[in-house]
Amino acid sequence: MTSHMSKTIIGVMGPGAGASQDDIRKAYTLGKNIAEKEWVLLTGGRNVGVMEAASRGAQEHGGLTIGILPDDEESPLTSPFVDIPIYTGMGSARNSINILSSRVVVACGIGLGTSSEISLALKKGKPVILVNSSKVTADYFRELGGPNLHIARDSAHAIEIVSRLI
Amino acid sequence: MTSHMSKTIIGVMGPGAGASQDDIRKAYTLGKNIAEKEWVLLTGGRNVGVMEAASRGAQEHGGLTIGILPDDEESPLTSPFVDIPIYTGMGSARNSINILSSRVVVACGIGLGTSSEISLALKKGKPVILVNSSKVTADYFRELGGPNLHIARDSAHAIEIVSRLI
Amino acid sequence: MTSHMSKTIIGVMGPGAGASQDDIRKAYTLGKNIAEKEWVLLTGGRNVGVMEAASRGAQEHGGLTIGILPDDEESPLTSPFVDIPIYTGMGSARNSINILSSRVVVACGIGLGTSSEISLALKKGKPVILVNSSKVTADYFRELGGPNLHIARDSAHAIEIVSRLI
Amino acid sequence: MTSHMSKTIIGVMGPGAGASQDDIRKAYTLGKNIAEKEWVLLTGGRNVGVMEAASRGAQEHGGLTIGILPDDEESPLTSPFVDIPIYTGMGSARNSINILSSRVVVACGIGLGTSSEISLALKKGKPVILVNSSKVTADYFRELGGPNLHIARDSAHAIEIVSRLI
Repeated sequence: MTSHMSKTIIGVMGPGAGASQDDIRKAYTLGKNIAEKEWVLLTGGRNVGVMEAASRGAQEHGGLTIGILPDDEESPLTSPFVDIPIYTGMGSARNSINILSSRVVVACGIGLGTSSEISLALKKGKPVILVNSSKVTADYFRELGGPNLHIARDSAHAIEIVSRLI
Repeated sequence: MTSHMSKTIIGVMGPGAGASQDDIRKAYTLGKNIAEKEWVLLTGGRNVGVMEAASRGAQEHGGLTIGILPDDEESPLTSPFVDIPIYTGMGSARNSINILSSRVVVACGIGLGTSSEISLALKKGKPVILVNSSKVTADYFRELGGPNLHIARDSAHAIEIVSRLI
Repeated sequence: MTSHMSKTIIGVMGPGAGASQDDIRKAYTLGKNIAEKEWVLLTGGRNVGVMEAASRGAQEHGGLTIGILPDDEESPLTSPFVDIPIYTGMGSARNSINILSSRVVVACGIGLGTSSEISLALKKGKPVILVNSSKVTADYFRELGGPNLHIARDSAHAIEIVSRLI
Repeated sequence: MTSHMSKTIIGVMGPGAGASQDDIRKAYTLGKNIAEKEWVLLTGGRNVGVMEAASRGAQEHGGLTIGILPDDEESPLTSPFVDIPIYTGMGSARNSINILSSRVVVACGIGLGTSSEISLALKKGKPVILVNSSKVTADYFRELGGPNLHIARDSAHAIEIVSRLI
């Protein structure tokens, strides 16, 4: 008999309404690649930006998608590409749960919510991989972040780094 | 093309270390039946009592199991029968997430944590089904709880009520 | 020079909109008595029911009042009798903070939110004093609650018990 | 009859163990100045770094000090200069409460926890004042943060900006 193990959960964080077209494209690819690796995708669960694109990419390629929502119940803001919506009713305090529940955090693009998640993840000692980050963002977290910060050239490179880390 | 939908998540709550042998037996059956219905099981995620038994029952019958843990990282307290551990780092404040994320809450047995979950679920207007409850417990929540409270004779009856409610 | 010490915080919990006239009268007296003892009052901070009455009683007698609000910012729901509003943005998950931050919890009347607070307090080993509780409520928590549960005849009796406990 | 009003709460955030001597000196002055203005000080409540120094500065000058602690009960980690300890039991998820409960957030120095607080505060639209920030930090939040970000030359300048904002 095989022993039971929990699944490998990879978080993809990034801006919602403020995401760029390129953030969204890369997030979709990240979701797709995570599904292909048979990892589980975790996002913030809303129907916008990086969360939505990553969830869609994963779900359309047979992956399982979890969303940790700031809301306290299903609403039009819940992404239809989330299989397992976890309703926290905690607003942005749920960002902490996002990073605690992810083995590795991939930040695709940057926004203020994402910035709080990168910060909390590095504080907890989780590996964080920046994709599509500006020089200013990379410099900032390099100064603050320590050995768990990684900078990826693109989605494929990010997935390569995740593979090495888990 | 079919539209995407989130999975049906059913919560099973109940005492940890204080669970009776009968609570544990019924929790295992609840988990098994939830898996057979192809619903997703949500519990508090620890390796003890009703949480552990329900997760084991579901996982051993091909079901998907989520655990919303009070802890902030994996530990020996995490049930090995949880596929998707969500680490909240919030202690008992996570009880609120358990009930917000469950379509229906089944309380199997009673303890102080379970009591807080039944209370919060009824406050939010979620259906709650009591299994293995004492007369005193049933009387208390009947007095407080309103139309969303259901009392089941056993696990099979609880599942019957869930089927009707969702 | 005297050593610094944190103030003694006493929590008063109870129903909001569902509070009876007698719950409200007793909550006002509890607030007044807590102020007279120079303890700090902690409530759920909303402008209704037991929270409002206890805060008013304390503030009108020179006491300091803290409110731990479910909301994420000031609103018409914030009690004007709260000196220190703590905005959690966490909905009912903030009930856990209410009890963790109170040296003793006085539950005046009963409702589903209050029920969750009594449950969490007893689980954490905090002393809980029931005022204005029905026989059914007292029986329920006596069955569940263990040695930290106290039943008071009225507000004065509750304050007497608090004095003994701290 | 005068109308009741809640007190003006000013948050001072900053590194704990990683605080520099200058961060600590400036935090003490911020606490002192906040007390002199008769505002209430809010910090993360631990006995280390900026939290401790600001609380000490405020308390030693007659101010009222609130600490929003990550811990679930009093411990040697609680600052003795906190009058009102609020125990959340939520770890770093409590950072969200820190900023929601502060009218203005002053960040004195930088660390990963502080970075999450600045991010969440700006996301919520709270004014944030950076004291003792490096050029890299200022550049980062200028790029992300929008109109609510202020950079102060020193503690006195920060207090001047707070006075203008409230």
